Amino acid sequence: MARDRLAQARVARLATADAHGRPHVVAVCFAVARDTIYSAVDHKPKRTTRLRRLDNAGDNPQVAVLADHYEDADWSRLWWVRADGLARVLEPNCGEAQSALDLLTERYPQYRRHRPEGPVLAVDAQRWSGWEAGG
Amino acid sequence: MARDRLAQARVARLATADAHGRPHVVAVCFAVARDTIYSAVDHKPKRTTRLRRLDNAGDNPQVAVLADHYEDADWSRLWWVRADGLARVLEPNCGEAQSALDLLTERYPQYRRHRPEGPVLAVDAQRWSGWEAGG
Repeated sequence: MARDRLAQARVARLATADAHGRPHVVAVCFAVARDTIYSAVDHKPKRTTRLRRLDNAGDNPQVAVLADHYEDADWSRLWWVRADGLARVLEPNCGEAQSALDLLTERYPQYRRHRPEGPVLAVDAQRWSGWEAGG
Repeated sequence: MARDRLAQARVARLATADAHGRPHVVAVCFAVARDTIYSAVDHKPKRTTRLRRLDNAGDNPQVAVLADHYEDADWSRLWWVRADGLARVLEPNCGEAQSALDLLTERYPQYRRHRPEGPVLAVDAQRWSGWEAGG
């Protein structure tokens, strides 16, 4: 359930931490295949923190990916799902990265105009969790 | 600019990490006063991870708070702002916690019916950053 809900969301937030345990969090477009969540460094301009998520994942593969629904007017409709897992940084020339970029390009029309070059971040979920407010 | 944009958002994502550098991320309602971002443990049912953000902040005060705008149909309107800072866990009986709960209650009508009991997490921002896609 948590996995399916995350797979259907259009945006998620990826939390990483550096070797000193300092957390970082970014919004990501993503695609899910089995228990792996893929996101790519894309063409949107980045600042100097551009590769911090990748540096962090290289130094410390423990990461978390959250998708949630917030609705100001009705807190009975809130939900969230989270995947805790381990990250791998895939260079663009590997087959898994190209498959992930295919999935991302299929999912987001914007990527069809500008296919991300990568690298790709693969997060292998080890634990899915979730919550919903209920009616 | 980043600070004002975050202050006006209705939901943010809080990333913490435990003593071993394992990141955690949750969606939070919040209020900003000067350079401090306040959120509270509220009445929404929590699972066993209920206090993980507080445990993490106690063990490792380095945290990050992200607000972002995602719009599937128009990526030229995307933006994000982030505060990197240090967290303090405030017990409900301290004056700062009560002031924070007042701010939160003023900001979210739902909290008027069920004022959060706390504890309150205070994040003192040390660095504000942000990005927007532009037109």
